[in-house]
Amino acid sequence: MNMKKQMKIVLQMVSGYGGEFKTWRLPEAKEDAYTDMDFYVEMAQLAEKGKLHALFMADTPALVNDLTQDTPMHSMDPLIAMTSVARATKHIGLVGTFSTTFNEPYNLARHLKALDVISHGRVGWNAVTTSTPATAANFGSHLKSTQERYGRAHEMIEAVQGLWGSWEKGAYIHDKQSGQFADMGRIKPLNYQGEYIQTKGPLPIPPSEQGQPPIFQAGPSPEGIRLAGRFASGVYANPFTIEESREYRNILRESAVAHGRSADDINVFTGFMFTIADSKEEALARRRRVLEFDKEELAHRLSYLGAMVGLNFQGIDPYQPLPDSWLKLARANPHDPRSPRALAVLKEGYSPVDTLAHGVINYHPVVVGTAKDVADFLEEWFEAGATDGFSIVPDLAHDGVRAFVEQVVPILQERGLFHKDYESSTLRDLLGVPYQYGIRTEE
Amino acid sequence: MNMKKQMKIVLQMVSGYGGEFKTWRLPEAKEDAYTDMDFYVEMAQLAEKGKLHALFMADTPALVNDLTQDTPMHSMDPLIAMTSVARATKHIGLVGTFSTTFNEPYNLARHLKALDVISHGRVGWNAVTTSTPATAANFGSHLKSTQERYGRAHEMIEAVQGLWGSWEKGAYIHDKQSGQFADMGRIKPLNYQGEYIQTKGPLPIPPSEQGQPPIFQAGPSPEGIRLAGRFASGVYANPFTIEESREYRNILRESAVAHGRSADDINVFTGFMFTIADSKEEALARRRRVLEFDKEELAHRLSYLGAMVGLNFQGIDPYQPLPDSWLKLARANPHDPRSPRALAVLKEGYSPVDTLAHGVINYHPVVVGTAKDVADFLEEWFEAGATDGFSIVPDLAHDGVRAFVEQVVPILQERGLFHKDYESSTLRDLLGVPYQYGIRTEE
Ligand SMILES: Cc1cc2nc3c(=O)[nH]c(=O)nc-3n(C[C@H](O)[C@H](O)[C@H](O)COP(=O)(O)O)c2cc1C
Ligand SMILES: Cc1cc2nc3c(=O)[nH]c(=O)nc-3n(C[C@H](O)[C@H](O)[C@H](O)COP(=O)(O)O)c2cc1C
Repeated sequence: MNMKKQMKIVLQMVSGYGGEFKTWRLPEAKEDAYTDMDFYVEMAQLAEKGKLHALFMADTPALVNDLTQDTPMHSMDPLIAMTSVARATKHIGLVGTFSTTFNEPYNLARHLKALDVISHGRVGWNAVTTSTPATAANFGSHLKSTQERYGRAHEMIEAVQGLWGSWEKGAYIHDKQSGQFADMGRIKPLNYQGEYIQTKGPLPIPPSEQGQPPIFQAGPSPEGIRLAGRFASGVYANPFTIEESREYRNILRESAVAHGRSADDINVFTGFMFTIADSKEEALARRRRVLEFDKEELAHRLSYLGAMVGLNFQGIDPYQPLPDSWLKLARANPHDPRSPRALAVLKEGYSPVDTLAHGVINYHPVVVGTAKDVADFLEEWFEAGATDGFSIVPDLAHDGVRAFVEQVVPILQERGLFHKDYESSTLRDLLGVPYQYGIRTEE
Repeated sequence: MNMKKQMKIVLQMVSGYGGEFKTWRLPEAKEDAYTDMDFYVEMAQLAEKGKLHALFMADTPALVNDLTQDTPMHSMDPLIAMTSVARATKHIGLVGTFSTTFNEPYNLARHLKALDVISHGRVGWNAVTTSTPATAANFGSHLKSTQERYGRAHEMIEAVQGLWGSWEKGAYIHDKQSGQFADMGRIKPLNYQGEYIQTKGPLPIPPSEQGQPPIFQAGPSPEGIRLAGRFASGVYANPFTIEESREYRNILRESAVAHGRSADDINVFTGFMFTIADSKEEALARRRRVLEFDKEELAHRLSYLGAMVGLNFQGIDPYQPLPDSWLKLARANPHDPRSPRALAVLKEGYSPVDTLAHGVINYHPVVVGTAKDVADFLEEWFEAGATDGFSIVPDLAHDGVRAFVEQVVPILQERGLFHKDYESSTLRDLLGVPYQYGIRTEE
């Protein structure tokens, strides 16, 4: 049996379509995936077939992007989607983003714990402070200072965990013979009295198979790293290079230790996007097609790409490789971590449009190629100690999830890099993080 | 075809067990129904087989009763339960109680509308102000005055409806050919600026098949009646007599008219509990058994029953009918609307324990008998104009839902009192209430 450490993989559901907001126009796409829960469930079941550790739903409680041509950044409602998926799957974890700023602790604690119980211990909470003004306006308030947001976030997670722990183990007795339904001596109010959060409890909910949901965190600010060190079992990250990722992972591990936890209690999931086809040429052609759906944006991206490598692309034919004389003048912009790769791709002889098709200006690293290319990328990052796992984002879920599950997963399994089956039915166990129930760590 | 007006029926899910909190000890009961979503779903599917109009989930965001021997008053979480059920049913409506005081309008509007979209227009919102101090403590606040609670309730419903209406019809275009995903000119912020509620919007969600969920209301205070008259398509009521129910229904209808709506826009659902068996004797025996699970409470109820009819039951054998000399002295307490019925049952010659087994001191009218007895009761109330329908509460869901669906429903259908199939796939249509989208009534 291969005992080497294996990577963990979660699937970002985005809005149902994928991480590229115009792929919905591809023939493969289902144009109303956003509102079709059957489709979400189908994707989740496919991900479960591939033994992925969890689904991840990012979220902001606001409509944050212009939908004229683009699909939304998030689902209609993560809680509704997670619950729907929970009922149609058995093993895959369900991690949802819920704002620490714009939720009532009692309501959030209750929703997530009820879902944890009915999913038999598969829920995780990505606790983010939410930093968009559009969101604040939906809650009748202005954006708070970092200090206030994180002050409340610490209290919020504590209070929610405290409420989760309000039924001790064994309190849910339901014994017909004795007639005792619950042991009220083991169901206790929390009486949380913080500066930002006050809530009494108890919740009306017993422990789940994993006790309570593990916490996830996202956002690399110093305050975010402190929050993660204190609470998180998983962290979502978007580094562009292996070095950046490894460094970030080490900082997070140190933060866990500084908070009295073990470095291995934090799993870093780095995001990356992929387009899989039978050849790299085919994959690039697909991405070119998507770029061409919006000529105006393509022009905009081209000029952005030019700026990244210190060139002015006005008037050139962007479908032709750059002449050597130009490439000699090009310089990677030191302020943009994506620039060196952009320049490298141009120097390989790809045209500016094809360079964009490589995803060099996306907000994630992007792999455009065959399933083996994707597996190689994952292996390289993982073996370099850059990350504990990946948060994968297909350009389009409709065929991307299947391609990953049916083509990439078997390669990773063969290489001993990915588990062949679920080792446990709870998310906490799948993450390999220690048991915690209530505010305090026990056992 | 029988065109006479037909009654509407919704099933109260309570905590999963039923309206009597000790029936979980009966052999028929599944002792962990509270945490078993498969069981909720099974009950919902059975109710749908019986063409019931909706499930109703009462709720208070607090643990409100002592669970030492009793099952909870409410489910772990109505939203999670409704979503689970939505995915496993096709026609039955899903009405949940959500507090106007202890929810953020944006979060609530979003959850309910997303659920409405994925259930294809089957959601209803029972909007209550929540009047328990235990709940306020969970939200770091004290109980508000009636005026504040209802002031906020009016704004809350307005704001939620406004958010629901933030995508005009036709805004969700998703046309691959033109490349237009949505018409941003028809997706508008609400900019709600009330005294209690401020929220900007828009929601990220298009209309459902019924546009948006209809509103329900519960609670007979003057403020409650005003709220219902202004907004409600359905009202939950607990009258004890036909006269009381008819009068209340008329008041509600007048309130609708006073708010510029039609009297028929409000459907009153009166609650009643039932125990169905092959004979009344058997049904009483079952309820006696449940009463005897808790001897202490039985003694307490007996002395309460005595007080209701002006007698002192101390020292009597409560399993024997009362002597005539006692019955002659008995008087119904004029301050308790349940007293006349309690006295009448005693005078029929039932012992005090058997009188309690009739449910005379329950918080609903109770029918204990055969399916025909139940059907007769429903017919009598309905034909007397006391109500538009019923909110039915089995003593125990496990066998009660099946008994109602398989035995009572066919009798009602045969008498032309209940529909034989769903006329529509949306709750709004099933209720027969006019279309409304956003804050204003259109069409
Ligand atoms: C990989 C990643 C995922 C994130 N996901 C979310 C999200 O789903 N919702 C959200 O509101 N913010 C999300 N964020 C933003 C962070 O939570 C954070 O607010 C942001 O990085 C700003 O930092 P600060 O809040 O620490 O100042 C994400 C950030 C990263 C790096
Ligand atoms: C049939 C019925 C059902 C009710 N259901 C609920 C409920 O599910 N949750 C709740 O908090 N209150 C519920 N109530 C209470 C009312 O909403 C209301 O708060 C109560 O009657 C006190 O009246 P007031 O709030 O108008 O002063 C219900 C009341 C009735 C009559």
